[in-house]
Amino acid sequence: MVQNLNQLVHSVTYTLQQKDRAAFFENIKDLQKYDLTHIFIKLSSREQEIFLEFIPVSLLADVLSELDGENRIKVIKILDPEKVSLAVTEMNNDDLVSMLGQLGEEKSAELLTYLDEELSADIKNLLDFPPETAGRIMNNRMVWINQSYTVREAVDKLKQFAELAEYLNYLHVIDDDKRLVGVVSYRELLLADLHWKIADIMQTRIVKVGALMDQEEVARIIRRYDFVTIPVVDDKERLLGIVTVDDILDVVYQEAEEDIEKFSASGKAIDFKTKPVIAAKRRLSWLILLLFIGIVSGSIIASFEETLEQVVALAFFMPMVAGMTGNTGTQSLAVVIRGLAKEKIDTKQVLSLLMRELKVGIYIGLTCGLLIFVIAYLWQGSAVLGIVIGVSLLCTLIIGTLAGTIIPLILNRLNVDPAVASGPLITTINDILSLLIYFGIATAFLSYLM
Amino acid sequence: MVQNLNQLVHSVTYTLQQKDRAAFFENIKDLQKYDLTHIFIKLSSREQEIFLEFIPVSLLADVLSELDGENRIKVIKILDPEKVSLAVTEMNNDDLVSMLGQLGEEKSAELLTYLDEELSADIKNLLDFPPETAGRIMNNRMVWINQSYTVREAVDKLKQFAELAEYLNYLHVIDDDKRLVGVVSYRELLLADLHWKIADIMQTRIVKVGALMDQEEVARIIRRYDFVTIPVVDDKERLLGIVTVDDILDVVYQEAEEDIEKFSASGKAIDFKTKPVIAAKRRLSWLILLLFIGIVSGSIIASFEETLEQVVALAFFMPMVAGMTGNTGTQSLAVVIRGLAKEKIDTKQVLSLLMRELKVGIYIGLTCGLLIFVIAYLWQGSAVLGIVIGVSLLCTLIIGTLAGTIIPLILNRLNVDPAVASGPLITTINDILSLLIYFGIATAFLSYLM
Repeated sequence: MVQNLNQLVHSVTYTLQQKDRAAFFENIKDLQKYDLTHIFIKLSSREQEIFLEFIPVSLLADVLSELDGENRIKVIKILDPEKVSLAVTEMNNDDLVSMLGQLGEEKSAELLTYLDEELSADIKNLLDFPPETAGRIMNNRMVWINQSYTVREAVDKLKQFAELAEYLNYLHVIDDDKRLVGVVSYRELLLADLHWKIADIMQTRIVKVGALMDQEEVARIIRRYDFVTIPVVDDKERLLGIVTVDDILDVVYQEAEEDIEKFSASGKAIDFKTKPVIAAKRRLSWLILLLFIGIVSGSIIASFEETLEQVVALAFFMPMVAGMTGNTGTQSLAVVIRGLAKEKIDTKQVLSLLMRELKVGIYIGLTCGLLIFVIAYLWQGSAVLGIVIGVSLLCTLIIGTLAGTIIPLILNRLNVDPAVASGPLITTINDILSLLIYFGIATAFLSYLM
Repeated sequence: MVQNLNQLVHSVTYTLQQKDRAAFFENIKDLQKYDLTHIFIKLSSREQEIFLEFIPVSLLADVLSELDGENRIKVIKILDPEKVSLAVTEMNNDDLVSMLGQLGEEKSAELLTYLDEELSADIKNLLDFPPETAGRIMNNRMVWINQSYTVREAVDKLKQFAELAEYLNYLHVIDDDKRLVGVVSYRELLLADLHWKIADIMQTRIVKVGALMDQEEVARIIRRYDFVTIPVVDDKERLLGIVTVDDILDVVYQEAEEDIEKFSASGKAIDFKTKPVIAAKRRLSWLILLLFIGIVSGSIIASFEETLEQVVALAFFMPMVAGMTGNTGTQSLAVVIRGLAKEKIDTKQVLSLLMRELKVGIYIGLTCGLLIFVIAYLWQGSAVLGIVIGVSLLCTLIIGTLAGTIIPLILNRLNVDPAVASGPLITTINDILSLLIYFGIATAFLSYLM
């Protein structure tokens, strides 16, 4: 039960300290993977060793598939290789692949030698698919039947494999060449006559994904159709495995996290436990880049030094103009990135989006430009200054809005994740553009400003 | 099939133009909800009317649950009320609740009168739960059995309700007071003897959620345990319904989108189809707020006008100092928000996080401060200017890092979503702080600078 996990930690700790193997097993036998692993992490090193000694192989497989990278390597080092090899054999294919991906080549090659030939070959095949594709995150916990089966044979196979398959909603139907030709829902099987042929009752309209499809695209399809599993096929339509929704949920969380990382340029993999020096290092790479870009802004301002010396009041509005331009760019960028995450767009849509954002830029620019004209005039008592600042803001907001639209679209066309343009990059580009326009216009009007 | 949806659109259009009801039905009968709805949206108004006339009620329910708000209202207006009422009765509870939530009170009260009393009461109960809670997104597509049942009775009930329940992995076991007391997996049922009692084979360690739990927390639990469904109970532990993973996937996408919206202050609900005037309006509310905050920055600079007049070079480094401070704040903010999305933290962890970020701020500040000292000295040839800028950057980076940590933590403690602090807000606060520090230090050193 979620509620009293802490109690359970205490109770498990006690049984381990007493070395009471039976009581320990009684405590943990019905636990969810996550809870079992959570308890393990809370234990002291000494208790963890006894835990690993006492735990049955099947539950060890659960712990191994749930642990994060660092703790997993620690556990594998503590355990004797034979027990690891037995546990690894009981792990789900996809968890095993993800674990081997983290372990490094040497250690993972060693682990592969423990597996029987067939499993080892299967795993090697999975590791051949590029990371973040359907092939890499699929598993084989599905039930497949041949289309020549009768309903009775299908039901028998389903019962036989019920233990293995986590999701019983669908059976996958293949032909003699292993090609996926249909699906039968468990429901249809229940309602059918036992002697009917599967080929006659299966649905042939199948939604499936290719093994090389990007995992984000797989997530979109699973979401669109409210599926729990989706079959993965190779280029000859042969059934390779299924992707399950639990893995897709991880994908969606992970991608959302990466988007926030990019929007804030915060660098990868900093969490509450990261050491200060490491967190600082990861963040500095971005900040130093931004520092040098800041120097570029500075040198633009320096090149307008004379203008600035003569009308110091221009400096008062500088952060506002640059900030607003950066913000409108980030807004456009967010709209484009969110849109691209939902659908692919063609050239016609790109053009209409650009026209839309141009109009948005003009509306925003006119409103804010007029507003700042009034404010600047009232504050500084100079209509010309008001006009310079208002017109500058109009121009920079239009350009900023367009830049925030065009840059992610170009990146997307180049197959680069458009989110890399987010936050700092777009802000910086718009900073530079806005300073050039602002001081350019001010310099042109300089004689009227003085 | 996903691949030839366009062909299907053409074929459906043709059958509608020919008013060939039979051929139309043949085309659409096996389609997924999403595909069927996608085809409907692609049709002309005239074709949509015939589509709605021809479509059987059960498939109309699919279309209604899949359509977005605007199109849904359009369809309900076109259709005759009787057909709507029949379709509504066939919709899933959770889709119906979400639809009624969008329709506005008057229209949704009208629709409720079409439903039979029991269903109408059920739906009203669901609508009573606050939005974004487990109660609001749960449905009743589960199979429950009494603990006094035998395995045979359970299997019979499962078969009877297989049509209704989408997810057959688990049966929920209740006692005579309707309290959830256990679960039985389909697998366990298959392996059990038909005359065994359910009470003897059920698992009593159940992971469940309260009806008022926030949907994000529900998503975290479903992800943690790799569940496909999770039972929802009231405060007396009575089984109310289940939350299914397809709805959770929508929640996760939606929350990720909201986070990006907040990080970019882009305003809600702007997509590729939003009209320019509306998009501009939604974005302007933020931009105008930021404009006024920009004026505050401006007046801070104005209050240091004398300093600035005497050392114009200070203006060159102004955007860099402000920008860097804003960026380090956003980085800290992202780390905190991502961390809080994963786990709850206690006071002890808050203090250790603050200490960590203080150290990170010092490391970052020392590195960047030293770097800018060298650059400013080489560029402007003044060691004092270099020191002023370097020390300012050191101070502002430390303060910016801490502000980016403290603000979301405070918001979180106040039960406000910390992501509202993101992007513009934190940038603006740090802008103002950095200008005060920068010009404060510069003014103190003014006599040495000249």
